[in-house]
Amino acid sequence: MDLVSQLNYIFNPSSIAVIGASSNPQKPGYLCTSNLVNDGFKGIVYPVNPSLSVLSGLKTYSSILDTPGEVDLAISVVPAEQAVSVLQDCVKKHVKGIIFVSAGFSETGSEIGSNLQNELKEIANKGGIKIIGPNTMGLINTKANLNATFSPGLGLCKIGNVSVVSQSGGMCVYLVNALIDNNIGVGKVIGLGNRCNLDFDEMVEYLNRDDETEVIVLYIEGLSNPRKLMDAAIKTVKKKPVIVFKGGRSEESSAATKSHTGSLAGKYEYYKAAFRQSGMIPVDTLTELADVTKALLLQPPAQSNRLAVLSLQAGPGIIAADKAREYGMSLAVFSQDTKKRLREKISPLLSIENPVDMAWTGSSIDTSREILHAVLADENVDVVIVSFISFDLSRELPKALIEVAATTKKPIVACVGSLSSVEDTIDALEEAGIPTYPFPDRACTGLAGLVKYGSIRESIADC
Amino acid sequence: MDLVSQLNYIFNPSSIAVIGASSNPQKPGYLCTSNLVNDGFKGIVYPVNPSLSVLSGLKTYSSILDTPGEVDLAISVVPAEQAVSVLQDCVKKHVKGIIFVSAGFSETGSEIGSNLQNELKEIANKGGIKIIGPNTMGLINTKANLNATFSPGLGLCKIGNVSVVSQSGGMCVYLVNALIDNNIGVGKVIGLGNRCNLDFDEMVEYLNRDDETEVIVLYIEGLSNPRKLMDAAIKTVKKKPVIVFKGGRSEESSAATKSHTGSLAGKYEYYKAAFRQSGMIPVDTLTELADVTKALLLQPPAQSNRLAVLSLQAGPGIIAADKAREYGMSLAVFSQDTKKRLREKISPLLSIENPVDMAWTGSSIDTSREILHAVLADENVDVVIVSFISFDLSRELPKALIEVAATTKKPIVACVGSLSSVEDTIDALEEAGIPTYPFPDRACTGLAGLVKYGSIRESIADC
Repeated sequence: MDLVSQLNYIFNPSSIAVIGASSNPQKPGYLCTSNLVNDGFKGIVYPVNPSLSVLSGLKTYSSILDTPGEVDLAISVVPAEQAVSVLQDCVKKHVKGIIFVSAGFSETGSEIGSNLQNELKEIANKGGIKIIGPNTMGLINTKANLNATFSPGLGLCKIGNVSVVSQSGGMCVYLVNALIDNNIGVGKVIGLGNRCNLDFDEMVEYLNRDDETEVIVLYIEGLSNPRKLMDAAIKTVKKKPVIVFKGGRSEESSAATKSHTGSLAGKYEYYKAAFRQSGMIPVDTLTELADVTKALLLQPPAQSNRLAVLSLQAGPGIIAADKAREYGMSLAVFSQDTKKRLREKISPLLSIENPVDMAWTGSSIDTSREILHAVLADENVDVVIVSFISFDLSRELPKALIEVAATTKKPIVACVGSLSSVEDTIDALEEAGIPTYPFPDRACTGLAGLVKYGSIRESIADC
Repeated sequence: MDLVSQLNYIFNPSSIAVIGASSNPQKPGYLCTSNLVNDGFKGIVYPVNPSLSVLSGLKTYSSILDTPGEVDLAISVVPAEQAVSVLQDCVKKHVKGIIFVSAGFSETGSEIGSNLQNELKEIANKGGIKIIGPNTMGLINTKANLNATFSPGLGLCKIGNVSVVSQSGGMCVYLVNALIDNNIGVGKVIGLGNRCNLDFDEMVEYLNRDDETEVIVLYIEGLSNPRKLMDAAIKTVKKKPVIVFKGGRSEESSAATKSHTGSLAGKYEYYKAAFRQSGMIPVDTLTELADVTKALLLQPPAQSNRLAVLSLQAGPGIIAADKAREYGMSLAVFSQDTKKRLREKISPLLSIENPVDMAWTGSSIDTSREILHAVLADENVDVVIVSFISFDLSRELPKALIEVAATTKKPIVACVGSLSSVEDTIDALEEAGIPTYPFPDRACTGLAGLVKYGSIRESIADC
């Protein structure tokens, strides 16, 4: 079976067996079963435990071999020493993929652990089964109501088209949290753990071909074969962006990744160079990750880096301009025609140089529209930030922005400040494809992602 | 009248006159009046407008000189050309301070504007009156229910002990938003605008002596006399921290600050050196500003920079360690005794090196407590991050943390991840004085602020 078909079974299983299902609510074997049921998985769930007959209202089996129908995905929470026998049963049952939650393999640094993992790998490769893990949290597919993890809540997160591949299970929660807290919906999420026979390059290749994924986010601690991922990335970034966050950047924390997921992290600068060379976009914080992801999800890549800043308040405009310079963007110099058009609408007391101080113009839809059109029409402008504090006197600006943004292919992002709730304004802008940010510096971070992706697309196309 | 008494009148006025009060809800003159009333100011409000008799249910006066009682604070929204006459009336009335909202002064770059501002300054200095602005949004004192701005909402923000001094009025909203969105309460907020005869150094001196202010936050675009602020800061930072965010960092954006608040921004590196030299803590983003402010508000300064990371999930522990290295902190090396105590509580499969992988121990209060005590007792540890995903299996860890944190003077911050609501956990931790952050990198940013402030306090004490 080819990789894509196999992973399609794994992310859209018709039936799942939970091996080591438990009736103790404090145990992963309980949580893995109850999460499937509670988060609305529509397929069949087979709890497997020889000493139980019913669990979470489901008939329980003493072995996966006793289950009546086919099993696409298995989740095993049994201790490491039982893993080989569980895997052998799964191969017999023609399971497509198995999640091994338990630790006790190569991440321990012991010979026993490494040998055990190698044995699993050999059986799995021979048996045509994909192992997720061992030492992982599992996987999610929001569009299939599938929460195949021991973490409650992951299955309830906002549905969307950003997919996440994380070496660490715990980081899955932080990564997804960073996204959904910023109004970004997620699709598929997977914790790879020790990457026994499913690795980053295969996941990137799969998500490249997955129509439900528009942006790919990776959390990487260490790679045994960076070249494979680089090759997969180069093929992917022509179609969709790949954002990468690296853990274990220093020698000290790299030692911790060794005992975490059994991989040596290596020098961050080497990794960063490899990421960039293959068109991935490295980010340094979870906030940056969310900001760049949102921009790439909603807006097209930028043609070049000449920024126009339009702000109802001068201060935030200045902050955006500051940050733009840090990202290597330049402030666009407006044409004479643009300046003339702006001067007709903006008080002579205010600056029509870039950043433009729009002051009180946000209460008029005509004025707002004309200012936006003038700046977007300027051929010296590639990308635009529009910043405003949302209150009664600025109420027309977001409306004009939605209207005008629909007429251009130049990337636009918005910075919406407020002390009261602005969810309606944010939702309206984002439904119209305009990413919003709470601070001007973060708006600029998002836009810088579009500039980077624009230049990646250009250089990859040239290859 | 000395500066502190005068500013006490301005931030706690018994009576306020709004000069240029308007009945048009689209005008600042309306908003300034209605905000005072709606946000619950308890003193007397005198709307001043010769063509109205009643506004927002208040008797209206044709001149400030006609108002019956004393006036502590005036807010003027009349155009620049009427400012001199308004100010002269205010001096006659013995007003303590006047907010000039309108633009049209030195920020225009015109001789007329500069001359006008100089004239105001001379009258104000002679008349013993403080001008806030011109070209500003006004001021807030949450503890007096005082919203003396044209921006609705600012008066409704979370009450607390962080005070904000901003050159830009618009940035006041973003600064306050960054704080309250992170559960940080604000006290006094002021937009200085063109700083005609009230400048940063005077505000720092005032807030130094203000018992209701524990942390001072500055947003600076440019200073005409940096030495004055440095002197004020050096005296202040022994008592309370001063955090500074600088706008107008590049030459291009510096040109924008000139037309914004009439000040040339100057090279950022020079400013940053001056800030550091005088014990202020510069921050580079609004997120960093919030993170550092929260830590400094809730926790003591650090003795030194040796960090222990305790995490229920290994991934976030690694991210915290990465970020710590970027901030120049070191990972503490535990004593043999600490390792022995940790090994008794933590599975042999898991790392007890720093960062410590606490795995499933968060469901036992005894185990959580013992691990925390062991690490905090280690004399090689100065500061601690505790990271966990909040769900049923980690429920005892925050309780243990609150209990153990009360027994130590070493700074502790928490990173709380979750996909469901964790407001109760966050509130409980922060009420106990433990700052919480949604991501491990941001927890580390907060802690780095405590390390910086610790070293500032030591070096300033040595002077």
